Amino acid sequence: MSAAHASPTAAEREQLQLAGAYLSRVAEPASLPLWMFVQRHGYLAAAAAVRAGEAPAEVASCTEARRTAADPEVDLQAAQRNGIRLLTPADEDWPHFAFAALQATAQRRVAQWQAGVRARPERGEPIPPLALWVRGAGDLGAVGFHSVAVVGSRAATAYGEHIASEFSYGLAQRDVVIVSGGAYGIDAAAHRGALAAGGCSVLVSAGGLDRPYPSGHRHLYDRTAEQGLLVSERPPGSAPHRQRFLSRNRLIAAFGAATLVVEAAHRSGALNSAGHARDLGRPVLAVPGPVTSAMSAGCHRLIQRDEEPARLVTSVAEVLAYCGSAELSTELSAEPEAEADRASGASGQASWQRAYDSLDAVDRSVLDGFPGRRGSVTEAELSRLSGQPISQVIAALPVLQSLGLITVAREGYRLASVAS
Amino acid sequence: MSAAHASPTAAEREQLQLAGAYLSRVAEPASLPLWMFVQRHGYLAAAAAVRAGEAPAEVASCTEARRTAADPEVDLQAAQRNGIRLLTPADEDWPHFAFAALQATAQRRVAQWQAGVRARPERGEPIPPLALWVRGAGDLGAVGFHSVAVVGSRAATAYGEHIASEFSYGLAQRDVVIVSGGAYGIDAAAHRGALAAGGCSVLVSAGGLDRPYPSGHRHLYDRTAEQGLLVSERPPGSAPHRQRFLSRNRLIAAFGAATLVVEAAHRSGALNSAGHARDLGRPVLAVPGPVTSAMSAGCHRLIQRDEEPARLVTSVAEVLAYCGSAELSTELSAEPEAEADRASGASGQASWQRAYDSLDAVDRSVLDGFPGRRGSVTEAELSRLSGQPISQVIAALPVLQSLGLITVAREGYRLASVAS
Repeated sequence: MSAAHASPTAAEREQLQLAGAYLSRVAEPASLPLWMFVQRHGYLAAAAAVRAGEAPAEVASCTEARRTAADPEVDLQAAQRNGIRLLTPADEDWPHFAFAALQATAQRRVAQWQAGVRARPERGEPIPPLALWVRGAGDLGAVGFHSVAVVGSRAATAYGEHIASEFSYGLAQRDVVIVSGGAYGIDAAAHRGALAAGGCSVLVSAGGLDRPYPSGHRHLYDRTAEQGLLVSERPPGSAPHRQRFLSRNRLIAAFGAATLVVEAAHRSGALNSAGHARDLGRPVLAVPGPVTSAMSAGCHRLIQRDEEPARLVTSVAEVLAYCGSAELSTELSAEPEAEADRASGASGQASWQRAYDSLDAVDRSVLDGFPGRRGSVTEAELSRLSGQPISQVIAALPVLQSLGLITVAREGYRLASVAS
Repeated sequence: MSAAHASPTAAEREQLQLAGAYLSRVAEPASLPLWMFVQRHGYLAAAAAVRAGEAPAEVASCTEARRTAADPEVDLQAAQRNGIRLLTPADEDWPHFAFAALQATAQRRVAQWQAGVRARPERGEPIPPLALWVRGAGDLGAVGFHSVAVVGSRAATAYGEHIASEFSYGLAQRDVVIVSGGAYGIDAAAHRGALAAGGCSVLVSAGGLDRPYPSGHRHLYDRTAEQGLLVSERPPGSAPHRQRFLSRNRLIAAFGAATLVVEAAHRSGALNSAGHARDLGRPVLAVPGPVTSAMSAGCHRLIQRDEEPARLVTSVAEVLAYCGSAELSTELSAEPEAEADRASGASGQASWQRAYDSLDAVDRSVLDGFPGRRGSVTEAELSRLSGQPISQVIAALPVLQSLGLITVAREGYRLASVAS
């Protein structure tokens, strides 16, 4: 990497952190107009405009409540006191890979929005978070390659906790990252299994990471941070409440190459996670149980679905068979048109052309900046090659990736080969 | 019905009984050449030819072992002493409806045989029995309309026995006939559930009905005979052995509009029954259980199958949804061509024509004997109208039915309407 395109300076990074923290505080619930606004103008300009009350009406309306009260310096200091760091897409360990599917569903929502659709999807906006609060030793950027979201009821049975723990143990032994929430029951059993195997687990919290919930899980939070990661979309101090749990569930689904439902009653929140996974094109796996157990009824219902049924799994080996290749699940989450192309046997070239045609001018110029079929480039190099600001490059990469136009390489990104 | 076409005389019936009993004794294992021979020449002539050693080579070879030793009078006397009666297709309560699918698979085997295929299918010849030994109050002719075969492991768990009993109880309460074997475990629990509900159950035995197996189930046999039926393909005195269990399983599958597997280990005989049901185009339903239970492993495997997976069921209502319409399952067992027609949206007329073209001369003349779209006819009337002997009419009807050309009416048979 040439000196001219080094990482952002400390001052640049601090500005990005403040903007990210600010946007994290005001962006609730996840808002498509705000997300589009940030994609277009970058973090610094977007945050400044929102704070100054100069954002367009649809952005202003969803940020007005906290626009002036939000204090990113206070949030960042509270984070620092609690060993929590803030990630934005500019950070090296931002989970671009795991979020590729969310990026793709966000693009579809943008297209709908531009077509005049204003209704929000039932499960909330399927868009990536603007920032993430993270605590722990793990590398969030690596999550999604070999990871399984393990979800289920708080009021789990002994059977369910046993399965969650045993499966997570077995998966973690094979270097699969376990992703779950922080609740009693299946969540806790999943983390404990992974940690007992010496593996990595990711606990995605609905509230601030300085407020373990339930409070009895403070030790579980601490142990998970030692071996894995705590992640939240909400800033420190945020209380967990229902809407945050539902919004949090899209992150759990996004972090898993597959979502495994261990036990779920008919109206369990775990079914919401399974719905997010389906939205993202990720496989949903379900563990059967006795038909006499209300806690297995939701799993059975998922397996019985006429459309996109869950796959019945009975062992770690079967789970691995469905999540071993994260590329598969990313493929499944690609644009419907691309899928139709595959189904109809259209050539890879036609599919590529269609994806290329769907790009906006900025994304296209970022793609055009790639140095040909063989080389891989970093974000900073792409910024120079394409003439686009780094923030635009960072925003474009997941889009290009989700469309199958580029792939993640060892030292950056490269053009995808056009499959025939 | 006119006097000229009355039921067979007592003497004719006695001759048919002797021929049926004789063929029942010599026809083991189920043999396609013998079945074809009987279809062509009728019971009396076929039995006489076999006994006299005048049958063609491929029939002689499979009947030689018992040709001279078989004594139908002794078998019929033993049956009478034990309250057992013999049914042949000429009898009113012969299960034509339940055997329509077996008749269809038999026709396919005939076509293969005529094309030179001599290998036997892995699960034995999928042909109807030549005769059945029956004991009990029930009407076997009505079985198959609303009936479920409930199968599973001898070494069932308490969970499995509970489910078999509860489901059978609930189904029997809704007038569904329960069909099973006579073994410990799931079989016995299924019968007990049906009997406790005051319903009808059919116990299909692998050996002679005068030899309850296991011997501890003599009381279960007696109770089932009081409220339902005992059925066996083997004459009185026959010991149960492995080959007879596997052959018996095709009858259990045939008697059920659907086959419900409650518990099965990986190599359970219940999976053989499920295979027979698939061969007959009948739905296979499976009850899930804990993945930690070896006795549910076979059920889970059935649900996971890539081809023709079993349907996961958790309640009596779900079982009813799959077996409520026996017509559906009969439709499913129709000729592959007819199915392809349905799938491709071909007209009912084209499908009808194709089915008609597939008939041999005798079956076609029986069909031509039907008195138009509105009237229903008895077998004896059809014999007169078509000019074909009653035995040919009896053999033709299930074929015509399985092809969807005729339907069972209240007082006989009628032409099917050509669906558009």
